[in-house]
Amino acid sequence: MKSGDKNNPTSNGLIVREQEPLNLEMPFADLNSFQTPNELFYVRCHFPIPEIAAADWRLKIEGEVEEPFELDYAALRAMESRTVAATLECAGNNRDFLEPKVKGVQWGLGAVGNASWTGVPLSAVLDRAKVKPGAIEVILEGADEGEIANPPKPGGRIRFARSVPLSKARQDVLLAHEMNGEILSPSHGFPVRAIVPGWYAVASIKWLRRIIVTSRPFAGYYQSIDYTFWERTADDLPTLKSLTEQLLKAEIARPERGEVVPANTPYRVHGAAWAGDAEITKVEISTDAGATWNPARLGDDSMPNAWRLWEFDWRTPATSGPQTLMARATDSRGRTQSFERSPDAGTYMITHILPIVVEVR
Amino acid sequence: MKSGDKNNPTSNGLIVREQEPLNLEMPFADLNSFQTPNELFYVRCHFPIPEIAAADWRLKIEGEVEEPFELDYAALRAMESRTVAATLECAGNNRDFLEPKVKGVQWGLGAVGNASWTGVPLSAVLDRAKVKPGAIEVILEGADEGEIANPPKPGGRIRFARSVPLSKARQDVLLAHEMNGEILSPSHGFPVRAIVPGWYAVASIKWLRRIIVTSRPFAGYYQSIDYTFWERTADDLPTLKSLTEQLLKAEIARPERGEVVPANTPYRVHGAAWAGDAEITKVEISTDAGATWNPARLGDDSMPNAWRLWEFDWRTPATSGPQTLMARATDSRGRTQSFERSPDAGTYMITHILPIVVEVR
Repeated sequence: MKSGDKNNPTSNGLIVREQEPLNLEMPFADLNSFQTPNELFYVRCHFPIPEIAAADWRLKIEGEVEEPFELDYAALRAMESRTVAATLECAGNNRDFLEPKVKGVQWGLGAVGNASWTGVPLSAVLDRAKVKPGAIEVILEGADEGEIANPPKPGGRIRFARSVPLSKARQDVLLAHEMNGEILSPSHGFPVRAIVPGWYAVASIKWLRRIIVTSRPFAGYYQSIDYTFWERTADDLPTLKSLTEQLLKAEIARPERGEVVPANTPYRVHGAAWAGDAEITKVEISTDAGATWNPARLGDDSMPNAWRLWEFDWRTPATSGPQTLMARATDSRGRTQSFERSPDAGTYMITHILPIVVEVR
Repeated sequence: MKSGDKNNPTSNGLIVREQEPLNLEMPFADLNSFQTPNELFYVRCHFPIPEIAAADWRLKIEGEVEEPFELDYAALRAMESRTVAATLECAGNNRDFLEPKVKGVQWGLGAVGNASWTGVPLSAVLDRAKVKPGAIEVILEGADEGEIANPPKPGGRIRFARSVPLSKARQDVLLAHEMNGEILSPSHGFPVRAIVPGWYAVASIKWLRRIIVTSRPFAGYYQSIDYTFWERTADDLPTLKSLTEQLLKAEIARPERGEVVPANTPYRVHGAAWAGDAEITKVEISTDAGATWNPARLGDDSMPNAWRLWEFDWRTPATSGPQTLMARATDSRGRTQSFERSPDAGTYMITHILPIVVEVR
């Protein structure tokens, strides 16, 4: 994958948001299939991409297990594998829409993609290691590492790591070695990345090197300082939480922001919507800045943890001028996107309705 | 207390570290008694000092209790009270000794003090409210409030709040209304401040307004982002922890940094040492930059959660020049201060041996 190659980050149509570390965005206007082609899939890195040779790679399984062991690449690939569709979305996707601007990579609409992932269920590996009673979480550690700039920060270099509850680990986490039927590229986590379906992609650790079963809650940097939000209980006291499940969202691929649209013409508005492990049951489109809403047609592919495509036939206005389009999703849990955004979500979980302003001419 | 008055922060010999919010340090060279006089006691504020009239004040007890209730000032003072000695130390005390410099108030030696506190045991209030089964923590909320500058931050204004485990809350937390036999001053938390003995003073919430019993771990801003450190398990993965118990420390009051000391003269080196709820069993002094160590005499007052005074008779060198003095404490748990400092402690918990450089003339 040329565009994910850290020596050549500016090819193949991906938008370069950062060079070091490498952060590449899919131009979301190019969406045209349920499965995002690998070369268009966004790339999110926190540190330089580790260069790992398959022959040298080992995956350690340790911690609160009866039988810690390690696997090499051939052994992992020889294990029984599954293939699942999963949409990965960066928790900071759409940050570029926020006013006032906030810190972090200024993602537009394209820090999201949907692929089919092939790999070994984490449950198989845990079963082989025999998890001890009392274990509550599984820590996934990547090989990517570096130093954090600002306090509160751990001393020295740290590796990227995240934990999932043991129940989630056993339910559907995958140790993926293929993406859309191809061997993972270095920028997508070669040789193995975890896929945590329905969760923000920060949990889907790339360049996986270690699995640690633990009996104590893990509060690593990327789930206690970074990638967090504030939850308010009835007491109205904000308490810090780790980002986990994806929230509800519909995004418009076309028209794109600033697009010039011919007047009084049929136009196919289309995009995708997702809601973690819930089903997208409705997508509505407003072409008049939210005054009225009309249902979009939903794509046939509907499965948990993967996005659902949608389209809407728009007759563009007869008169010239700016026009604001919006999409809003509803899911099988009865959630619907709203106009408001909670300031407790900070720089993440941008789940409110996003306006797309076009120019009718 | 004149020096703690927010309208007149620069009097009475306290060192002004910040004006807004008010942060005042005791000149530690003035240490001369087990009990720190109120007017010399350091003041740590995060927001403007709330102006609270005793007649208007209410303390609410709520959350996971059978019988939530509120107390007014007269009712609280009418309850049976206890008086305990407790040393309060700011978790950032000695930050001015760190090289390279780190962010935060640049405290020298004097963000620490020892007072006797009179108030109502929190356990009595909890008993009256009847804590429900399943409760695990008690949140203490102050009336001081404001907005946080940098993410990750909650939306809008928040109040200063901290939690303690239910067991600690029942053991020895005090709802103090007197400090060294005087009504609390506004800068020290009038009308009521919590005292959490043996813990860093951040837990001893001033201007207390609400006590919330909770069945879920509380991760408020001041215990999940601010006032935290990194703990490494056997896996060498840093995991975030809240600052709780005070660590071991001996501080030299005299001579002070940069003091000019006459050559070949008897000099009384003295100071204080503390170790949370452990007993200080030994303080040793080095007057040759750590090459040799000699025992100091310990003061008679030795009790958990309060500092212990010490002194050492030094014959100053016959020759002029800079001289480095050090003190190191040992406690009843067998801990001894070391020269090293863990970078995982960040900008807090400065517990290594501190050099005091003087000039012999």
